[in-house]
Amino acid sequence: MNCGEGIDTRQIDELFINLDPIQAGGRLTTDAMKAVLAYGDGYSVCDHCTKPFRLDHISKPPLAEFHKDLATFLNMDTARLVPGARRGFQAVADALVKPDDPVLLTAYSHYTEFLSVEQARAQPFEIPANDSHIITPDAAASRIEEVIKTTGKTPALMFVEQVDYQYGNQHPVKDLIKVAHQYDIPVLCNGAYTIGIMEVDGKELGADFLVGSGHKSMAAPAPSGVLATTNEWAETVLRTTGVKGDLTGRTFGVKEVEMMGCTLMGVTSVGMMASFPHVKKRVKEFDAQVRYGNMIVDALLTIDGTQVQSEYPRRHTLTRMNTTDSFDKVAKKHKKKGFFLTSALRERGITGILAGSTRVWKFNSYGITKEQASYVADAFVEIAKAEGIA
Amino acid sequence: MNCGEGIDTRQIDELFINLDPIQAGGRLTTDAMKAVLAYGDGYSVCDHCTKPFRLDHISKPPLAEFHKDLATFLNMDTARLVPGARRGFQAVADALVKPDDPVLLTAYSHYTEFLSVEQARAQPFEIPANDSHIITPDAAASRIEEVIKTTGKTPALMFVEQVDYQYGNQHPVKDLIKVAHQYDIPVLCNGAYTIGIMEVDGKELGADFLVGSGHKSMAAPAPSGVLATTNEWAETVLRTTGVKGDLTGRTFGVKEVEMMGCTLMGVTSVGMMASFPHVKKRVKEFDAQVRYGNMIVDALLTIDGTQVQSEYPRRHTLTRMNTTDSFDKVAKKHKKKGFFLTSALRERGITGILAGSTRVWKFNSYGITKEQASYVADAFVEIAKAEGIA
Repeated sequence: MNCGEGIDTRQIDELFINLDPIQAGGRLTTDAMKAVLAYGDGYSVCDHCTKPFRLDHISKPPLAEFHKDLATFLNMDTARLVPGARRGFQAVADALVKPDDPVLLTAYSHYTEFLSVEQARAQPFEIPANDSHIITPDAAASRIEEVIKTTGKTPALMFVEQVDYQYGNQHPVKDLIKVAHQYDIPVLCNGAYTIGIMEVDGKELGADFLVGSGHKSMAAPAPSGVLATTNEWAETVLRTTGVKGDLTGRTFGVKEVEMMGCTLMGVTSVGMMASFPHVKKRVKEFDAQVRYGNMIVDALLTIDGTQVQSEYPRRHTLTRMNTTDSFDKVAKKHKKKGFFLTSALRERGITGILAGSTRVWKFNSYGITKEQASYVADAFVEIAKAEGIA
Repeated sequence: MNCGEGIDTRQIDELFINLDPIQAGGRLTTDAMKAVLAYGDGYSVCDHCTKPFRLDHISKPPLAEFHKDLATFLNMDTARLVPGARRGFQAVADALVKPDDPVLLTAYSHYTEFLSVEQARAQPFEIPANDSHIITPDAAASRIEEVIKTTGKTPALMFVEQVDYQYGNQHPVKDLIKVAHQYDIPVLCNGAYTIGIMEVDGKELGADFLVGSGHKSMAAPAPSGVLATTNEWAETVLRTTGVKGDLTGRTFGVKEVEMMGCTLMGVTSVGMMASFPHVKKRVKEFDAQVRYGNMIVDALLTIDGTQVQSEYPRRHTLTRMNTTDSFDKVAKKHKKKGFFLTSALRERGITGILAGSTRVWKFNSYGITKEQASYVADAFVEIAKAEGIA
């Protein structure tokens, strides 16, 4: 089957166990699939849009209710849909940060957080990680002090990742936020790997902003995401337009500047909404998912020369391995070179690891069953044995 | 069927002739529908992403080729996918406009163009329309002169709408751009109602930026759109990141600041791409679509007291009617009040006009067949007769 010209049907998640680091949490649920078909057309959610003409006020489909549910789910005061977590970072940075302001990020901040700072023409400063690849409150405190001393300004914003993209480690966000708040620095907690995957309580964390990704972790189509905030900060980041046509006198109602008005007018919002009841359930089953991830890591660690670079035992399903002294030794002599590993996995119905990687590589086992975890664990050991590693 | 909780299946375009002003050009093609199902999962286009890790470089599905085809289709040097036309406006305004800069818009600029100026903290100035609701080059020239005189600055950017959202009128964009270029003002041509609907030639128009909407006019899911530009301006608006992690030394390759890196990582880009071969064909059939639109307008004009506020004969399928002296007179005495018209239309299988409108209202007949146009034309006359209007 060809869709349009040159687009093959994609069946990665139907035919394989997919361990892709960024794809695991974004697979659609069956309900989302149905919703996507029903709401595929462009502005499909706008049939019953009435005053005040804004996406989060539409009651059919129940987007207004969904926005409220999202805020409750995250224990924040208010929530908006955004076209990807990055657009949430952008909105917050644009609203809070002035040119040349110092902004704190961490050694594990995602490139899109950096881009949001760059777009705001601000100066990024990283909080270093410790040897265990964790961002600690002490490191945050001393970096804040240093930045204030060097720049003469208090940072306008701090980004922290609840779970980072490099190691999949859980960082002490609550304590990091406490430190920032001592200096009156508002904090954006990046939940791209957590919101929709594990339970996230914004008030408990003390976050001023929580940002999640629909296509990364909420079983939603791309681009989608959520920006949640407190009443205090909503006034700034969700301020409504104040601009006026100087000749026509036109004003633009309650459209929000940083949202650029409405955000997800069709398949993306409805996809997120259709998956949401499932997402609410699955975050409660995160512990089991972590156990399955640990089963795979444990199996990998039985292979001579293999190391886990993420915190261990694992507290998230995204994991970074180092197999320089195991699989990479094989790669050096194998006729398929570095591709032997991903090729051997693919033969066993497993995909998602960056093709050719045999030194440092990541996998995300989110969403698999216990049986599949056991199968993947065995597959790695089997491949190692077949290639003569103890 | 319920998708998730409370999401009913939507069958507007299956069961009705839909004249919605903003939905007509965004209905998916069958190929897009298939693609949407195959690529519904979050990051579904990222399976084969390799260096330099950017959406417009992915060759499977053929996004790289699609980006080139889009630029060729618009006769511009380069094109990027964006999450809606508004995100194209935002990118250009952010890249070109400094706080307090004067920016020119028109009396018919869309609210999202205003929001992009507001977000850039700039000052908007409208070019007035003439009595025929057209933005003329003379009006542009005198407004530019006036703004330069008043603010002491040359406007940093000018927005023009090829076809505006209020009247659906075609404005003399080529000549408007010529005027702006005499003052070295770069011009963004808003093609939200044209790109994907009629043939648009960026070089012929002289546009520095062309922005189109996938979900409004390219038979694509929301949010999607295209930003195309020239080699000259690509350096500014598509500049790659220059930011660096100050401790880790991390840099972020060829990610583009104003795009926030990758933009449409799944269903939206593939939906646009699957519809694209059809879109390329349909723009050549625009004249027939305009004829069908005129059939409906002509029928409406036979109804006593009815006026067309858009330019006439119509040159676009989006049309603004004034029925204050016809349908609104009925509404004043009808038991359904203003809802009698949309209700009578709905009984006849026609939908999309704002419920309750009987004075000034818009419709967009894009995508209908000659037979459907004739049916709609007859329906309006029939309703008028049934309510006793001559």
